[in-house]
Amino acid sequence: MSAKIARYLAEQQPETPCVVIDLDVITDNYKTMKRLLPLAQIFYAVKANPAPEIVNVLNEQGSSFDTASRGEIDLCLGLGAQPEKISFGNTIKKERDIAYAYAKGVRLFAFDSEAELQKLAKAAPGAKVYCRILMECSGAEWPLSRKFGCAPEMATDLLVKARELGLDAYGISFHVGSQQTDLDQWDVAVGRAAAMFSALQKANIDLRMVNIGGGFPARYRAAVRPVEDYAEAVMSAMQKHFGNNIPEIIIEPGRSMVGDAGVLQAEVVLISEKDYEEDKRWIYLDVGKFGGLAETMDEAIKYKLVTPHDGGATGPVILAGPTCDSADILYEKTDYQMPINLAVGDKIEIHSTGAYTTSYSSVNFNGFPPLRTICI
Amino acid sequence: MSAKIARYLAEQQPETPCVVIDLDVITDNYKTMKRLLPLAQIFYAVKANPAPEIVNVLNEQGSSFDTASRGEIDLCLGLGAQPEKISFGNTIKKERDIAYAYAKGVRLFAFDSEAELQKLAKAAPGAKVYCRILMECSGAEWPLSRKFGCAPEMATDLLVKARELGLDAYGISFHVGSQQTDLDQWDVAVGRAAAMFSALQKANIDLRMVNIGGGFPARYRAAVRPVEDYAEAVMSAMQKHFGNNIPEIIIEPGRSMVGDAGVLQAEVVLISEKDYEEDKRWIYLDVGKFGGLAETMDEAIKYKLVTPHDGGATGPVILAGPTCDSADILYEKTDYQMPINLAVGDKIEIHSTGAYTTSYSSVNFNGFPPLRTICI
Repeated sequence: MSAKIARYLAEQQPETPCVVIDLDVITDNYKTMKRLLPLAQIFYAVKANPAPEIVNVLNEQGSSFDTASRGEIDLCLGLGAQPEKISFGNTIKKERDIAYAYAKGVRLFAFDSEAELQKLAKAAPGAKVYCRILMECSGAEWPLSRKFGCAPEMATDLLVKARELGLDAYGISFHVGSQQTDLDQWDVAVGRAAAMFSALQKANIDLRMVNIGGGFPARYRAAVRPVEDYAEAVMSAMQKHFGNNIPEIIIEPGRSMVGDAGVLQAEVVLISEKDYEEDKRWIYLDVGKFGGLAETMDEAIKYKLVTPHDGGATGPVILAGPTCDSADILYEKTDYQMPINLAVGDKIEIHSTGAYTTSYSSVNFNGFPPLRTICI
Repeated sequence: MSAKIARYLAEQQPETPCVVIDLDVITDNYKTMKRLLPLAQIFYAVKANPAPEIVNVLNEQGSSFDTASRGEIDLCLGLGAQPEKISFGNTIKKERDIAYAYAKGVRLFAFDSEAELQKLAKAAPGAKVYCRILMECSGAEWPLSRKFGCAPEMATDLLVKARELGLDAYGISFHVGSQQTDLDQWDVAVGRAAAMFSALQKANIDLRMVNIGGGFPARYRAAVRPVEDYAEAVMSAMQKHFGNNIPEIIIEPGRSMVGDAGVLQAEVVLISEKDYEEDKRWIYLDVGKFGGLAETMDEAIKYKLVTPHDGGATGPVILAGPTCDSADILYEKTDYQMPINLAVGDKIEIHSTGAYTTSYSSVNFNGFPPLRTICI
């Protein structure tokens, strides 16, 4: 937790639950990434945290923006981002939303299917398009599924088709999985992209861009490698597979840009036991799975928790949210220990909650308001 | 789908995604439940759908309200519900929220732990309190976990303690699990409650109420028994275990009151395949797990889908939502078939979406606005 956030929490005592974001950390993260990957153009993945203050700070730093919807495009444009710095990176778009983005000046679009290509040809003639390819993504903490991307052979055909349809067949994207811990995954993915560059050259299509997606980590409970190692893995893979002919690189950090910048403060609402034999306490917080901690789904993301009693004796706990929903449990299988002295009314800080929290929050579930964001 | 909803959708062509609620169906459901369980007091579980129009209609019918938070209490009071018809049914409450409810005239509270009892004694002196007991809940489609309730032996001690603390030890509650298909579960639960009534009588405590919770079903993809069978199972269990001395009964229907009253209309955004070998189409809708269909978590609730091409040839599909989140998949393991003729832009109706949809919806995930409710 940054000193600035610690001071803010101590002095302001904001009503819980809330996420406090230190904008200076985001500026630092941006500069670090820029320094480590000087050849890459950074497109902040707005979905990670769409707080206007964050978009503003990154726009001032010169960042580009990866957007998922018309709503996110409007957000960025409304805050002064230039349309040529916006990518419409969702592979699932309504044709009228493509047309809307195009009318606003957006010229860079993702796709992974023929049907999407047809929409793009109609609603965004001549735009730069890149095709997302499937990755297996072992080693990622937040599972990626097969929802996005298509097989490389299909992607190759689709990029040929893109040119036939009057679009600019610009490049290839992949995503190795969020919070990816296996650095070799970038080598596999970049190798696959390079093979497609060669295959398409035979069809006289010169791809110019590789979008390496996100996947750089935020610091949760477990230790992670420094971001330097990730940048190094990406650049060695590019050099290995593209030699002296390195194409434009796009990177779409979300979690790694804003995750560590946020701290969620919550209150202990109840501590209880279920029967006389049970050895585990149930700790109920005023924030849960439907109030912003959606990424605890299947206990995937394991947040670091800090209490006022850390350092003393601890015991095993089950952590749950405040709603009447039985699925609103944060950690039951994962081994979490909390201080024996923890009491109802204590404040708990949940670290690295700057990404994928507030915007996941439900609009009004059980009558609880959405999670607040405070940017400082 | 009611004729009223079908007419509305045909005439108004509302922008998708939206849930259309037929308030007449809710009135009918209330009357049916009242007729089948004349001895029970109906507390509508507001969390199932907090649309003001629904609370209004049920208030006019004479319903009481089961609330989960200060927000829901304010909603009901603001719409004219009397405080004596409101239960603060969440076992996880901040002491200041208990005090708030008490100041507003609420006098009925749930608990399942000593810590909660201490808060109630301080903030709601003399109030009626009921203790929730644990149930195993096999047979329920939406899993209940051990989050709520305590073992009956502990509950018995806590009710003795409640009297010592100056509270009115009023009764026992349980929940057999949402969308419960095994009717014997009510017999087990009521038997357990009756045993506690006897045990507490020996301590000179006369419990007066059994709260049988929710659990009556809505109609999703699979056929369900008629609500008559559920009412019958409950009343036989009460007669079997309490004889001629049947206590007050509270029932807290949520899903069974409003689920069938709603239809969610969505649009097909994209249909694609991932590679040349795949036999399953991916169908992407403009609503997903974070836009209101949270109960597809682990594919638990299996909604019935209706398309404009039903009746023709079908093929297997994977259904997913529109966000860039790889976890935003509705059905991948469950066998869903959709018409071969289904096309991008088609409207799909998702039935029985009146409960646990709109309020689960995320506030702004991926820049998509929350799911709209239209009550007619």
